Amino acid sequence: MSTSNAKEHNRTKFLKEFPKLVDELKSILTDYGLPKEAITWYEKSLNYNTPGGKLNRGLSVVDSYAILKGYKSVDDLPEETYFKVALLGWCIELLQAYFLVADDMMDKSITRRGQPCWYRVPNVGEIAINDAFMLEGAIYILLKRHFKKETYYVDLLELFHEVTFQTELGQLLDLITAPEDHVDLSKFSLKKHSFIVIFKTAYYSFYLPVALAMYVAGIADEKDLKQAHDVLIPLGEYFQIQDDYLDCFGKAEDIGKIGTDIQDNKCSWVINTALTKCTPEERAILDSNYGVKNAESEKKCKTIFNNLGLDKLYHEYEESVAADLRKKIAAIDESRGFKSEVLTVFLNKIYKRSK
Amino acid sequence: MSTSNAKEHNRTKFLKEFPKLVDELKSILTDYGLPKEAITWYEKSLNYNTPGGKLNRGLSVVDSYAILKGYKSVDDLPEETYFKVALLGWCIELLQAYFLVADDMMDKSITRRGQPCWYRVPNVGEIAINDAFMLEGAIYILLKRHFKKETYYVDLLELFHEVTFQTELGQLLDLITAPEDHVDLSKFSLKKHSFIVIFKTAYYSFYLPVALAMYVAGIADEKDLKQAHDVLIPLGEYFQIQDDYLDCFGKAEDIGKIGTDIQDNKCSWVINTALTKCTPEERAILDSNYGVKNAESEKKCKTIFNNLGLDKLYHEYEESVAADLRKKIAAIDESRGFKSEVLTVFLNKIYKRSK
Repeated sequence: MSTSNAKEHNRTKFLKEFPKLVDELKSILTDYGLPKEAITWYEKSLNYNTPGGKLNRGLSVVDSYAILKGYKSVDDLPEETYFKVALLGWCIELLQAYFLVADDMMDKSITRRGQPCWYRVPNVGEIAINDAFMLEGAIYILLKRHFKKETYYVDLLELFHEVTFQTELGQLLDLITAPEDHVDLSKFSLKKHSFIVIFKTAYYSFYLPVALAMYVAGIADEKDLKQAHDVLIPLGEYFQIQDDYLDCFGKAEDIGKIGTDIQDNKCSWVINTALTKCTPEERAILDSNYGVKNAESEKKCKTIFNNLGLDKLYHEYEESVAADLRKKIAAIDESRGFKSEVLTVFLNKIYKRSK
Repeated sequence: MSTSNAKEHNRTKFLKEFPKLVDELKSILTDYGLPKEAITWYEKSLNYNTPGGKLNRGLSVVDSYAILKGYKSVDDLPEETYFKVALLGWCIELLQAYFLVADDMMDKSITRRGQPCWYRVPNVGEIAINDAFMLEGAIYILLKRHFKKETYYVDLLELFHEVTFQTELGQLLDLITAPEDHVDLSKFSLKKHSFIVIFKTAYYSFYLPVALAMYVAGIADEKDLKQAHDVLIPLGEYFQIQDDYLDCFGKAEDIGKIGTDIQDNKCSWVINTALTKCTPEERAILDSNYGVKNAESEKKCKTIFNNLGLDKLYHEYEESVAADLRKKIAAIDESRGFKSEVLTVFLNKIYKRSK
């Protein structure tokens, strides 16, 4: 199979597991004696909010596990093993669904993944808050039912707790630093940006999938978890900086959307870097135009970003961080069974990405 | 000390533990490198939303533990032991805070415990959703730091997960059965009411505090947990039915507020019982007046409730459920160390309560 066919195949295979988990969750609600309309509601929330994205995080658990155990293809995994690692992948997707349902309410977003945000679906409204809670709740039900007997069961619970809290910390700092309706660039800094992206994105999107795969593979010595962490956290930060860069400098036809970070007062790498480089005159223009919801103000900011050579600065950053990560990956100690290939795969997906 | 003095003393003692927990949580955020304004924000959310209520749930953990271990006063507990059971009590209060912050947003409430609801505090708004998540997150941080080495650590985690999910299930059914802005009495039933109150209230308010105390006391055989469950769940249901009754029939000077269940379209025991007793004519009046926000409509409903003799029906229910619970409590098997007194104390607090 070609790489893109294999990728599509793996995605389809992964997607096929989800309805089994929904059925399992429904059966628990039935056993509790919950009336039918509430079971139907939960089923709809699970299906509306969980699949439908790129599923990169969930798929990474399966891929990482296959690499760690030396399988050439995920099709070679025994059926039961595939189910277990895919289930953990779906737990990350449930965690993501929980965050997104809530984030969309906090950001007053309109659409998500090409459909109305869940809270905007007729009759849902504020009930979406409780639905978000119940998406999170599904994680611990599934972990208990399928991992209780494993020696690493507590590790899984603690990992999900910790990463969830870290993500919430990142979200908190983001929300109070860059509220959409109140621009104050003096609150911004590259240091805060780094904290926000590491906590809000890197932990659950990069470290979590690999750490989960490591536990199931039985390659989860503290030293190995640290090796994975020390590459995946800066890699996740790099990914988000790239995302910030593409929002401003990427082509709409590549990234599949029109960037809105400037108008939305986002605490992005672009503005934070600009703030460290700009003249007082440029700063004054940014102060009065960043986060303002019109194309003219946006253009004034972009002109400054171009004048400051942020495009070039980004590419320098990218080369430097990629070189640094390659060095770290080359130095990985594989003596306890950990494989640096897990990390290389991630880096290769991201390096010089244009979409 | 008189009973009421002892109660106040225990409450004050319990309250003194909370700032220690806040300091501990703050130190974790500091270790993460979170900027100061976010630490201050979290501290404010913890202090605004967690103490300030009656603290019955949290205090019940301490009281139940003292009874189980044969202490005459909570002052006799060794300091370290007191800290641990009080910490579990505060974990319930954190769980409650998490629910209340979210419930107030879903119900569009104005005040809570004599102050504006958290989401209505200036600059908070929708950020309250993330703050609710972080109140829940505190539970698992505290459990990990203080109970990780205990044999029952996993039991505590699973208990909190399960009870949290059960409460969310109750909340979901309540929200879709009785939305404040769309009255449809055909959705109501005593069976649904029973599910809602057991799941939304009884598990976390009655079963959870006792079960936590039982784990710490080392008296948590499955049979004993079941004995506690089988009394505390119907007791919690009775408590909520009493609450529903008092909202409609209680004196404002006793209950400290003016009941609003009728105008708010609440799925209460009162309306559900009325629906099983009323004539088609009365039903038509209820259909067009229940959940309508004016005093005249409310009065029409109350007249029907009075005509149906709901007051008498309630007192019959109360006597019957109390007798049943006393019988169950008398039959408790104490051979493994469980003490029925834990349950008697709960029943005595509730029986014939007028406020």
